[in-house]
Amino acid sequence: MNSSVLRLQRQKKSSHPAKGDNSMARGIVFSTERLRALFEPRSIALVGASDKSAWSWMIHAGLIQGGFNGKIYYINPRNPVVHGQTTFAHLTDIGEPVDLCYIMVGIEAVLPTIQDMIAAGLHNAIVLTGGFAEQDEHGQALQEEITRLAAQHDLAIIGPNCMGYINITHSIEAMANLPERPILAGSIALISQSGALGALMLNYAHTQNVGLSMLISTGNEAVISVTDVLQYAIEDETTRVIALFMETIREPARFVQLARQAFERGKPIVVLKAGRSEATARVALTHTGALTGNDRVIDAVFRQLGIIRVKSVEELILTANAFAKVGSLPGRRLGIVAISGGACDLAADLAEEAGIALPIFSEQTKNELRTLLPILGPANNPLDVTGAALNDQNLMGNILSTVTRDPELDAVLCLIEPPADETPQSRFVMNILGGIDQALKSSPIPAFMLPLTSNDVRDSGRTFLELTGIPFLSGGIHMLIPALGKLMAWMERYQAAQAKGPEQAVSPLSLTIEALGSWSEYQARELLAKYGIPVIPATLATSAEQAAEAARAIGFPVVLKVVSPDIVHKSDIGGVKLDLQSEEEVRKAFTQLMSNVKAATPAAYIEGVLISALHAEGIDLLVSVIRDATWGQVLTLGIGGIWVEALKDISLRILPVTRDDVRAMLTELQGAKLLAGVRGSKPVKMDKLVEVIYRTAALAHSLKANLELLEINPLRVNGSQIEALDALITWQGAAK
Amino acid sequence: MNSSVLRLQRQKKSSHPAKGDNSMARGIVFSTERLRALFEPRSIALVGASDKSAWSWMIHAGLIQGGFNGKIYYINPRNPVVHGQTTFAHLTDIGEPVDLCYIMVGIEAVLPTIQDMIAAGLHNAIVLTGGFAEQDEHGQALQEEITRLAAQHDLAIIGPNCMGYINITHSIEAMANLPERPILAGSIALISQSGALGALMLNYAHTQNVGLSMLISTGNEAVISVTDVLQYAIEDETTRVIALFMETIREPARFVQLARQAFERGKPIVVLKAGRSEATARVALTHTGALTGNDRVIDAVFRQLGIIRVKSVEELILTANAFAKVGSLPGRRLGIVAISGGACDLAADLAEEAGIALPIFSEQTKNELRTLLPILGPANNPLDVTGAALNDQNLMGNILSTVTRDPELDAVLCLIEPPADETPQSRFVMNILGGIDQALKSSPIPAFMLPLTSNDVRDSGRTFLELTGIPFLSGGIHMLIPALGKLMAWMERYQAAQAKGPEQAVSPLSLTIEALGSWSEYQARELLAKYGIPVIPATLATSAEQAAEAARAIGFPVVLKVVSPDIVHKSDIGGVKLDLQSEEEVRKAFTQLMSNVKAATPAAYIEGVLISALHAEGIDLLVSVIRDATWGQVLTLGIGGIWVEALKDISLRILPVTRDDVRAMLTELQGAKLLAGVRGSKPVKMDKLVEVIYRTAALAHSLKANLELLEINPLRVNGSQIEALDALITWQGAAK
Repeated sequence: MNSSVLRLQRQKKSSHPAKGDNSMARGIVFSTERLRALFEPRSIALVGASDKSAWSWMIHAGLIQGGFNGKIYYINPRNPVVHGQTTFAHLTDIGEPVDLCYIMVGIEAVLPTIQDMIAAGLHNAIVLTGGFAEQDEHGQALQEEITRLAAQHDLAIIGPNCMGYINITHSIEAMANLPERPILAGSIALISQSGALGALMLNYAHTQNVGLSMLISTGNEAVISVTDVLQYAIEDETTRVIALFMETIREPARFVQLARQAFERGKPIVVLKAGRSEATARVALTHTGALTGNDRVIDAVFRQLGIIRVKSVEELILTANAFAKVGSLPGRRLGIVAISGGACDLAADLAEEAGIALPIFSEQTKNELRTLLPILGPANNPLDVTGAALNDQNLMGNILSTVTRDPELDAVLCLIEPPADETPQSRFVMNILGGIDQALKSSPIPAFMLPLTSNDVRDSGRTFLELTGIPFLSGGIHMLIPALGKLMAWMERYQAAQAKGPEQAVSPLSLTIEALGSWSEYQARELLAKYGIPVIPATLATSAEQAAEAARAIGFPVVLKVVSPDIVHKSDIGGVKLDLQSEEEVRKAFTQLMSNVKAATPAAYIEGVLISALHAEGIDLLVSVIRDATWGQVLTLGIGGIWVEALKDISLRILPVTRDDVRAMLTELQGAKLLAGVRGSKPVKMDKLVEVIYRTAALAHSLKANLELLEINPLRVNGSQIEALDALITWQGAAK
Repeated sequence: MNSSVLRLQRQKKSSHPAKGDNSMARGIVFSTERLRALFEPRSIALVGASDKSAWSWMIHAGLIQGGFNGKIYYINPRNPVVHGQTTFAHLTDIGEPVDLCYIMVGIEAVLPTIQDMIAAGLHNAIVLTGGFAEQDEHGQALQEEITRLAAQHDLAIIGPNCMGYINITHSIEAMANLPERPILAGSIALISQSGALGALMLNYAHTQNVGLSMLISTGNEAVISVTDVLQYAIEDETTRVIALFMETIREPARFVQLARQAFERGKPIVVLKAGRSEATARVALTHTGALTGNDRVIDAVFRQLGIIRVKSVEELILTANAFAKVGSLPGRRLGIVAISGGACDLAADLAEEAGIALPIFSEQTKNELRTLLPILGPANNPLDVTGAALNDQNLMGNILSTVTRDPELDAVLCLIEPPADETPQSRFVMNILGGIDQALKSSPIPAFMLPLTSNDVRDSGRTFLELTGIPFLSGGIHMLIPALGKLMAWMERYQAAQAKGPEQAVSPLSLTIEALGSWSEYQARELLAKYGIPVIPATLATSAEQAAEAARAIGFPVVLKVVSPDIVHKSDIGGVKLDLQSEEEVRKAFTQLMSNVKAATPAAYIEGVLISALHAEGIDLLVSVIRDATWGQVLTLGIGGIWVEALKDISLRILPVTRDDVRAMLTELQGAKLLAGVRGSKPVKMDKLVEVIYRTAALAHSLKANLELLEINPLRVNGSQIEALDALITWQGAAK
């Protein structure tokens, strides 16, 4: 009875590890101090610097324009002068320590350069050069050698096939890309496995007036991976929010650990993870030598870790910015003020979808608003100030001063565009903006100006923002209201976690079972029952007479099922007989069942036949723990028994889980409502259900070492009656 | 057994008609010729023109700057000169016909002005003035008077509380708004119930280099509604695509008719409909005097009509633009070329989600690509050209020339940004863009350049686009790839409809039933059975003995259900007895059931007790037809019987439907897979199921006049066995 949901996940086991994946070697974990040396160098050597190379020009110009105030060494064995600077022939000629080598030589010269580094006692490098694991077998071998040398000689190497980084906080632009200027400093660390996309995201941030603390591209991750950079960013004081573009997660266990650490420290991680589709898995394999994981599991893991997942470059930058700019929020109650009724409607739709409350204003606020503008009538939230805002330049400011003092609200948005260069209406807008600026700045709660659409912030807008310092979020309501919803959800969770303290560790059962292949239902039942998971009472019989006797003891009607470790889909081969009303029927059924089974699977080992009462009606759940190639044990909870496959109404978590996690999983199911009781069925006793699921997870977690699958399907629930009707356990490795 | 899904819809019946809704009066349908006079005037009078009014300045300046080449009359009873032009005191003083009056006087002067129009024999107007139905009772009364006068004197009036329109094709800017210039002419008619949002959308279109044929804001729709404008736009030759922002649909029947007409003519309608949430319904009520409808029904109606629904201003403009620019597409097979692997991954994810196929390139294409750039290796689609594109300025063009000739593709996208003013990389980009331009223009299939992100098209970009005329879509992959998916789906449907010819009209049964209140299950069953809808065989009994006799005839086990028009939830009051095994059990059950029912509902009229066989297992559906306050009869199809409420897995259509519609509804259900047979159940005989549902819909449609609800729940299906286990029919009006 294992479902296709599970089969899908299991397929991954047989797939090869991704080409460029050498996480074994990357087992080297760098200290934060070590990473600081890599990302905050005071001297840089450009290896392969050349007037003929556009890349070289860009890196050289970037360092200069970015205001790098350390030493730059230009390494070129053929030309004494490059970019107007005297060169060294080799790294070994410099004769003093260099904090970082930027390597942009041809692919065959990369390893010799790294040997030079070792000879010169240098430890940090960026490798721009491509053609490694993403390219072919030869490149793969070269990349493995880089990894090997790094492990042997304590080298921290970014890349190969990466663009480097810009440490904006420290004015170090070690990147083969010339961004739009001025580069805006901020508190978002942007980390990207794709270099080109990193550069593009930096430009997008610029057009949206979003400041970063750093942009780091990691490329093929032969040595330094996203996880290492994550570690650096978590420790970086300027960084408040981390934005990640990822195609693959190479060190899942460490990633989980760091994500938990970031959450504990109150640093949100926003992730754009490519590879949601089959087609993407194909592309990514080629271009960064990575295999993308099962997306549904990734989704669940991110949710479990408090990681905010987004779907586009725009959403990544704008969501991270909302987190960085808004910071802490005590609740989900938002007030919205706009000059357009249509905008109010759209904002209300978006807020509702984002789980944001738009409370009715307090009576006092309403009264004040009506005094300010009698035509406001009911003074709804969102509030449409109407065209009156254009006639009285103080009106918007006054209205905002009132609304931001409403005790029913946690935050306020004023929907209005910043001044745009070409708009003739600018003068109206400028009149109004002054008042808005004052009101927002003196607001006792977070209050922001937000444009309706996602347009770029143009020069005049940027000037206005800089001059006034008005609290401003860019990106338009379509992006920002969902982002605020995500921020509110994150804050709730963060504050709850802070109040509660660290979660209680789950103590695994001390349990050792050595097994291979599949267990029969009978064996599985026995194990579950032993660890307190209720199974439907049943008796094993090996003859028709034993079966009849057992049936009499149980009471009619009964069900017969064949018991065999070799037969998974019992009903498909006539191995199940339902609704037997008498001993005679049971005897006949036993004989027929045995003959069916023997005809269908002559070689199967048959333990006997299980006799149980015909089960009561109820709601069926699927509870299973499967081994995921990337994340380890994953708990799946689904509503519907046979319906799980069609409805895909499931919730996933990586193990271990707490009882609270299980409770949360149950609420995530669309069909959760059914558990509260539908016509004719009793409400499920939730504590008991949570306990049964939790115990199943705990049992599987304790069996970790060699468990392949533990599946209860269905777990039938009806009021306080909760019983596993069928169970399947399989172990890693084929049966002997 | 009626579900909450249905109850939700039924609530609307009791709600008041929306404040500003006077669709009775708007029953006047203008001829297209008449609408042309309104939207293509050769002379315009500005009533209430004043140097002191910003609105007046804007309209005056707009007409001049927009190049209006007809006559403009300035009406002001106090000042002889306004905006430097000689005025008339009243409309009646002009002494010659004026095609359009733009009225911007105070609210109390609006009706007198309309009286002046009548006196002067003028027939067309825009009313800018607000404070009508959106404001208070008084304004509501004034607005009703406008509607009355319009009906009486054949006046076509836009507004009140609207900004007017810009007919871009005809250079008529009759709008209180100064947009960014140059206004870009194109083939999208943009219609907005919100004036402020209309202006904002026009600016957004400008920043995205999107051209419009017109922008029309309709405000309170006292006379001219969105439907009238829709009619004009459908007939307008320049318009190829219609983009609508709506808060309410005031004339649903005509809207449906026009939407069908637009579809038949191959003019796609893209709609941003606000009011998806509860909160919005509150705001909209205030600000345009409109009540928003049940969103789920609207969603279904739009789908049924081939209307493309979007969720944001950005998506509205960009999707309409994709439809306008790409035009016809023969299929869903897309090729994508980019310089970034990360971009390829993101594009692949988006394509997969949008239902777009990314076929593997043909062998010939692959070979040619590898000749152009050996490192391409497998030459996947999406194709990452890598940084090599920067080294060889012809590479991208050559690659695109190859890809666009691949016979496996229907369209090609090249992901690259247009030149941006401030980027130092522009020179690299310009080198490459020339080749891309050539390749895209000579492509035998639709091929477009598309930026990765949604940034504004800046001046240098706009210049480049104008100079080259390169096929270009703005808005970034996040918006455009889903838009292309919608275009492909629309095209498929359009082409199928074209090939098939007009749909066969459904001939309603000639059937008159006069009834009130609720029918008993027995009555409902009889009616269904009479019209060929299979119901589970059952016998009505009025005594315990009759019941026992009926049970014997049917065969055990049987089910007993009370039959009463007054009892809807039979099981809740003990009115159902399941699984009765003998005559004795039936007799006892009958007596107990009757005593339960009498205790619970002493006043209920009891027709008797229905005896039927215990139903076989199977999959339960809900089939119902309900009367929706806006759209009339709505067919709901849901999977799950009792599960419908929890899973909300339903599909809706307005009646009448064809058998093909029913088939499509079944495929829309998430649980549709179950119908193909899950473990232990037979695949459902689809033709038979479609026929049963179709007949139910046809029956309800024929009963239209006074049917309130016809609900079969569950319709149990198992293989070819399809039976209504329970049915409910209620009629409009309470029972006597």
